Amino acid sequence: MRLISYRANGVPGVGVMTSDTEFVELSKVAPNLPNKLVDILGLPDGIAQLENAVSGQAATSSFDQVDLDPVIPEPHAIWALALNFKTHIAETGLTTSPDHPHIFLRVAAAHVGHLQPILAPPVEIDRAYDYEGELAVVIGRGGRHIPKDRAMDHVAGFSIYNEGSVREFQKHNRQFGLGKNFGSSGSFGPWLMTPDEFGNPYDKVLKTTINGVVRQEVCLDDLLFNVEDLIAYLSTGYSLRTGDVIVMGTPGALPPKPGDTEGAIENQYGPIKYAGMVHMKPGDNVTVSIEGLGELTNHVEADGPVEYRPA
Amino acid sequence: MRLISYRANGVPGVGVMTSDTEFVELSKVAPNLPNKLVDILGLPDGIAQLENAVSGQAATSSFDQVDLDPVIPEPHAIWALALNFKTHIAETGLTTSPDHPHIFLRVAAAHVGHLQPILAPPVEIDRAYDYEGELAVVIGRGGRHIPKDRAMDHVAGFSIYNEGSVREFQKHNRQFGLGKNFGSSGSFGPWLMTPDEFGNPYDKVLKTTINGVVRQEVCLDDLLFNVEDLIAYLSTGYSLRTGDVIVMGTPGALPPKPGDTEGAIENQYGPIKYAGMVHMKPGDNVTVSIEGLGELTNHVEADGPVEYRPA
Repeated sequence: MRLISYRANGVPGVGVMTSDTEFVELSKVAPNLPNKLVDILGLPDGIAQLENAVSGQAATSSFDQVDLDPVIPEPHAIWALALNFKTHIAETGLTTSPDHPHIFLRVAAAHVGHLQPILAPPVEIDRAYDYEGELAVVIGRGGRHIPKDRAMDHVAGFSIYNEGSVREFQKHNRQFGLGKNFGSSGSFGPWLMTPDEFGNPYDKVLKTTINGVVRQEVCLDDLLFNVEDLIAYLSTGYSLRTGDVIVMGTPGALPPKPGDTEGAIENQYGPIKYAGMVHMKPGDNVTVSIEGLGELTNHVEADGPVEYRPA
Repeated sequence: MRLISYRANGVPGVGVMTSDTEFVELSKVAPNLPNKLVDILGLPDGIAQLENAVSGQAATSSFDQVDLDPVIPEPHAIWALALNFKTHIAETGLTTSPDHPHIFLRVAAAHVGHLQPILAPPVEIDRAYDYEGELAVVIGRGGRHIPKDRAMDHVAGFSIYNEGSVREFQKHNRQFGLGKNFGSSGSFGPWLMTPDEFGNPYDKVLKTTINGVVRQEVCLDDLLFNVEDLIAYLSTGYSLRTGDVIVMGTPGALPPKPGDTEGAIENQYGPIKYAGMVHMKPGDNVTVSIEGLGELTNHVEADGPVEYRPA
């Protein structure tokens, strides 16, 4: 099953996809079920109730009729990984612990849903606004001290994350802090795919394109720490909760093809430069896809001007 | 005014203190007001409505009749500072940017309220569980690109934070990650004090005691980046929201007094050691106080055993 969170005329809802763009609105076929995906995942038999509710139902809406929310709009925690692809570590020369994952947090206000605009900071704030295509893991049943061989029992499903990063801010000090948490800088979607449908994550290819040009492409067998490792590690100290998200880290950039001047190092700003990387700018279309899972697409728009805006 | 969040028989409520332990339950005198402090702070005239509601009212409850929650139980974001006291930076020899604050995030599940137990990890998980007494700032009216000279207009009030840290995990990799986010490792309270009552934060003394022995003591004029700096910096990239928390960083340890072997370096574990620092252990009582603001006290209890506990 593929499950979405959306708003129709401002009202939040949960949908079950019947094609890549059409879905059954749960509110139409099972009005007694919660209208938040996290609450359904928190029911002991939530997925079974969903399956019963939509069985044999035709689509009642489609992506062009709603605003898609992040798969889980407000997770209790979004754990994100730095430097978690072996080839990326080798290419950057950056070091990371071989024993413990490199973890930071993102806030919910920093992500939007599929087909919603992501926001590029004005150039006087930061000139290095970068995509990071990643696999996202959504926790179903929570737990503490989860052993690796039980970890997948705690996964509700998989999704895609564009872990948009504002690089000059990210390097302001040693902790990434604000640079990983600009408002609407990243995206999370299009849907949650249940594990039975996704299958083995580690034989799938992740790809990021900017305006149709492939900029990242890697098989998920290149992960340094895998999903089971992270669930075991995090639950050592923290009780994982339904709807928590683990974002598995991003691969490096593909080398630019001959004639591709956009990806040249001399066109890059900020503290992190690789051949083949391009910054995101207003007008770009960015798509992160994972084989068998789907495509997460966002249009880049300019964030508002640098002026005092009290809420 | 001093405002608290609590649960009475599991039902959340907001209280207005009439003494250091007694308060007026808002639900009794203004049942139409929201029962979450963040929702009251989000009303344009929320504080004025509170003041009207409790004016002339006698206390209706006291701390021994309720469970105190963190002042804001589930903030959208908890921004925390590392290395933000000049004397602490000098004493540790650690470096930080003089231009940009050193920022990381905590999750809400990592804090509890005043008088609630905080949890020490089992020694086989981590032997270095440390207090960090800090000033907490709670955002009232949100905003973006807030200039320093308007920053205090966006502060709903001040509180106290024990930013409990699990040091061996904190140093597992470069980002602090899980080490700053163990479940119930920190605390936030006892109350939010409005700025008119607290006055100038920078002439107040912060003090941390373990079992009555003073371990940290500093005047808040020693901050490297102050509250106005942080509000301006964060709102460059992120729209500050009502109820967001900024935790201003911790000072160093006081040198141990003659005969105080507990604070000796040879009794310390983990990657960060200073003369006078002691780790927190089950049975300890930890109090962080800020002059004119109040005292935040927590008893340290042992976290549960290292065994698989699905939720």
